[in-house]
Amino acid sequence: MAKLTQLIDNEVFQAYATYATIVLVKMMLMSPITAYFRITRKAFANPEDTASLGKGDSAKKYLRTDPDVERVRRGHLNDLENIVPFLGIGLLYALSGPDLFTALLHFRIFAGARIAHSFAYLIPLPQPSRGLSWAIGYVVTMSMAYKVMKTALYL
Amino acid sequence: MAKLTQLIDNEVFQAYATYATIVLVKMMLMSPITAYFRITRKAFANPEDTASLGKGDSAKKYLRTDPDVERVRRGHLNDLENIVPFLGIGLLYALSGPDLFTALLHFRIFAGARIAHSFAYLIPLPQPSRGLSWAIGYVVTMSMAYKVMKTALYL
Amino acid sequence: MAKLTQLIDNEVFQAYATYATIVLVKMMLMSPITAYFRITRKAFANPEDTASLGKGDSAKKYLRTDPDVERVRRGHLNDLENIVPFLGIGLLYALSGPDLFTALLHFRIFAGARIAHSFAYLIPLPQPSRGLSWAIGYVVTMSMAYKVMKTALYL
Repeated sequence: MAKLTQLIDNEVFQAYATYATIVLVKMMLMSPITAYFRITRKAFANPEDTASLGKGDSAKKYLRTDPDVERVRRGHLNDLENIVPFLGIGLLYALSGPDLFTALLHFRIFAGARIAHSFAYLIPLPQPSRGLSWAIGYVVTMSMAYKVMKTALYL
Repeated sequence: MAKLTQLIDNEVFQAYATYATIVLVKMMLMSPITAYFRITRKAFANPEDTASLGKGDSAKKYLRTDPDVERVRRGHLNDLENIVPFLGIGLLYALSGPDLFTALLHFRIFAGARIAHSFAYLIPLPQPSRGLSWAIGYVVTMSMAYKVMKTALYL
Repeated sequence: MAKLTQLIDNEVFQAYATYATIVLVKMMLMSPITAYFRITRKAFANPEDTASLGKGDSAKKYLRTDPDVERVRRGHLNDLENIVPFLGIGLLYALSGPDLFTALLHFRIFAGARIAHSFAYLIPLPQPSRGLSWAIGYVVTMSMAYKVMKTALYL
């Protein structure tokens, strides 16, 4: 158990744990937001979800897509596509012995960029807000991938 | 190598390894289930997948969506959206020094809820079966996120 | 810090770090490929993305799906569905004390299969190229899951 405690006692690893949890919880918030728009827009994907809204054909009309629901779903999928690489590469980066200042810089910019991305997607803000916040998170992850490869390359 | 063995020799970490593998393997099963419905319903997404069913226009009619296929795909995506946070937050939680009983409780409830969610989605069971099983997994992950933040917060 | 360095100094863990980073960076490349097809095919999902192409109704016609864009998006989602289990199970496998030769075999075949899968999807190559490369990655992940369960089972 001692060794485990040493891992979580490392400051770089603590910073990774903090920011990984922040971006994952942020991603998880997309689910209730999707549910909110599905209910308020009455736009569902599954027949069993419309059962309380009426019977037979009167419920069928709620099996439809809605632009607001689809927008949140695209934002959620974009989170998955970008936060999964951050989770994996960020963990390896945290274990590759970066100095604390550089690591915090990477984690903070990534988390900030992804939070900005969600606002840009959901409000929505005019481009290039969304494109730019996506690109910043992407470059940060690539920078960590470079450090991992430089430290641990074993093909 | 000794240190690595110590990590996997820790009981909480072993429990995490066991339940993380269970839910990931469960998620992987959605791929052959999708393939099964694509083949039996003759509903494909790629022209090259229909080549064995006929030539030219006779094969094109199999490039279509099918409600059963789409249902499995939605279940698969919901797995990704919920199991990815469990993987990341659960790992950090396992390293944050929880007691074994509490950790097992979290992991077991999450795995049970996600397995129930898949049955509720695929059979399908009437609501709120699916909604409830989703919510239980969600709350368990949030509870682990809270413990990680309490132990390792480093902003 | 010493303990962390020992983790990344382990050869099996270095191999995992290398191949996990390779497949994650490969997955990340799907994003600019999607953007490339969205721009060249003029097929966008968000109204704000078409603002530079014209005003009002003249821009609306670019809010459409395109077969090439959808193909890349399916490839990207398939990456997520398969690389997420590799990330999680592969990490636990690397910590379960496999011998270096066997571990490298698993990681190399998985990475090769996923790179082949992307080429088979994007070119596209006739089946069973894509199906086979998908199946190889799937079997490798299942083999690692079996090893994790044999080493760390704690229900």
